[in-house]
Amino acid sequence: MIVDVALQQELVGDVAGTAVVVIDVVRATSVIGAALAAGAEGVRPVGSVDEAREVAAAEDALLVGERGGLAPEGFDLGNSPGDFTERVCSGRRVVLTTTNGTRAVERCVGAERLLAASLTNAEVTARSLADAGHARVLLVCAGSGGLLAIDDVAAAGCLMGNLALQAGAEPSDGARTAAAVFDAWKHDLHGLLRRSVSGRKLTEVGLATDLIACARVDAVPVVAELQADGVFRVPA
Amino acid sequence: MIVDVALQQELVGDVAGTAVVVIDVVRATSVIGAALAAGAEGVRPVGSVDEAREVAAAEDALLVGERGGLAPEGFDLGNSPGDFTERVCSGRRVVLTTTNGTRAVERCVGAERLLAASLTNAEVTARSLADAGHARVLLVCAGSGGLLAIDDVAAAGCLMGNLALQAGAEPSDGARTAAAVFDAWKHDLHGLLRRSVSGRKLTEVGLATDLIACARVDAVPVVAELQADGVFRVPA
Repeated sequence: MIVDVALQQELVGDVAGTAVVVIDVVRATSVIGAALAAGAEGVRPVGSVDEAREVAAAEDALLVGERGGLAPEGFDLGNSPGDFTERVCSGRRVVLTTTNGTRAVERCVGAERLLAASLTNAEVTARSLADAGHARVLLVCAGSGGLLAIDDVAAAGCLMGNLALQAGAEPSDGARTAAAVFDAWKHDLHGLLRRSVSGRKLTEVGLATDLIACARVDAVPVVAELQADGVFRVPA
Repeated sequence: MIVDVALQQELVGDVAGTAVVVIDVVRATSVIGAALAAGAEGVRPVGSVDEAREVAAAEDALLVGERGGLAPEGFDLGNSPGDFTERVCSGRRVVLTTTNGTRAVERCVGAERLLAASLTNAEVTARSLADAGHARVLLVCAGSGGLLAIDDVAAAGCLMGNLALQAGAEPSDGARTAAAVFDAWKHDLHGLLRRSVSGRKLTEVGLATDLIACARVDAVPVVAELQADGVFRVPA
């Protein structure tokens, strides 16, 4: 298994024949994991707020997501992992629109397999990739508004470490870069998230406490895999 | 001073109003430093082999550079830092064509100031930037054939550490990423270069010993700055 990391989604090229993991720690992929762990039937990422409203109405789904960090008018929930409780999610379809994570998912359509991962489900995601024995894995850091977001890089490094242990994966220079970031900050991931460009934006809109949940390594051990109908679910 | 790092040259956007440092540790910017330290009058980077031949003839310059790691037919020297001795270089203009470093320089034309740096001249380059008091500094990792090259990232991290000390520079997430790589590998930079994509390519063409010179932090303390005539020189 060869593992590469796209440190920003703008660097993603052809993904055919590659198992892709999209990473948006603050907060899209942390929320996808949280919703699935809380019993949501599935999470459909959609690009625009208007499309999210339409699709959620048509699918009788929970309408969630953010613009500028906050829930748009009329949404059921924003993008805070802690709000995705069993009481709210169990058995429900979730329609999610976010700024960076959703765009990264759209960029990677055509991959052999597409997973969403975060610090919260790194080990279980690596296990799923190792068990499948993919030849090529690409970890895609969503970033923040066209900038590198170091929270995503740290999660890619965490995944890389797990893949090295579980599958003897060979790191590219990008994967080695991500591994160094995780290693430098693994004892203070919350501190790293507070310093990151995405964490600082979140703090500005009063949602700094979300960073605590996003920094909990392997706290939400579910795999999130995009299915043929465009919905993330826990694979059977 | 705000310091950002473009982890690959493909991520460079508008550089107006920014002091840019192009980094191609293996080997273009290590060679530029070596040639200037050996007394070369200046180093002119040019894009193509044919253009290099023409310009070198017109300027009675030393014709140097590489394609696939090796000196093209009829060149005076390849791209090995150790070959740039005073006996060969003193007082001479050098015309240099390389694959990744030259392209990165071309991408950054229009910057407020453009320097070439490597591990070998990191501290002196940081000192020059700190003394000038630039508001924005961008460190550009040249990469290797469109891929991230971790040797360039390590040198960017070394520069970032120096800029933090010398100018109290504020790191972006990209700069923090580079700093983590340098910190992880600072006691075995030669080992990192051997593992890097650029180092492995060089080893394949029999030039692994060049990596020893490229890994020597601050061994060649000269600043290389692009002048208005398109030539890198030690600034007055």
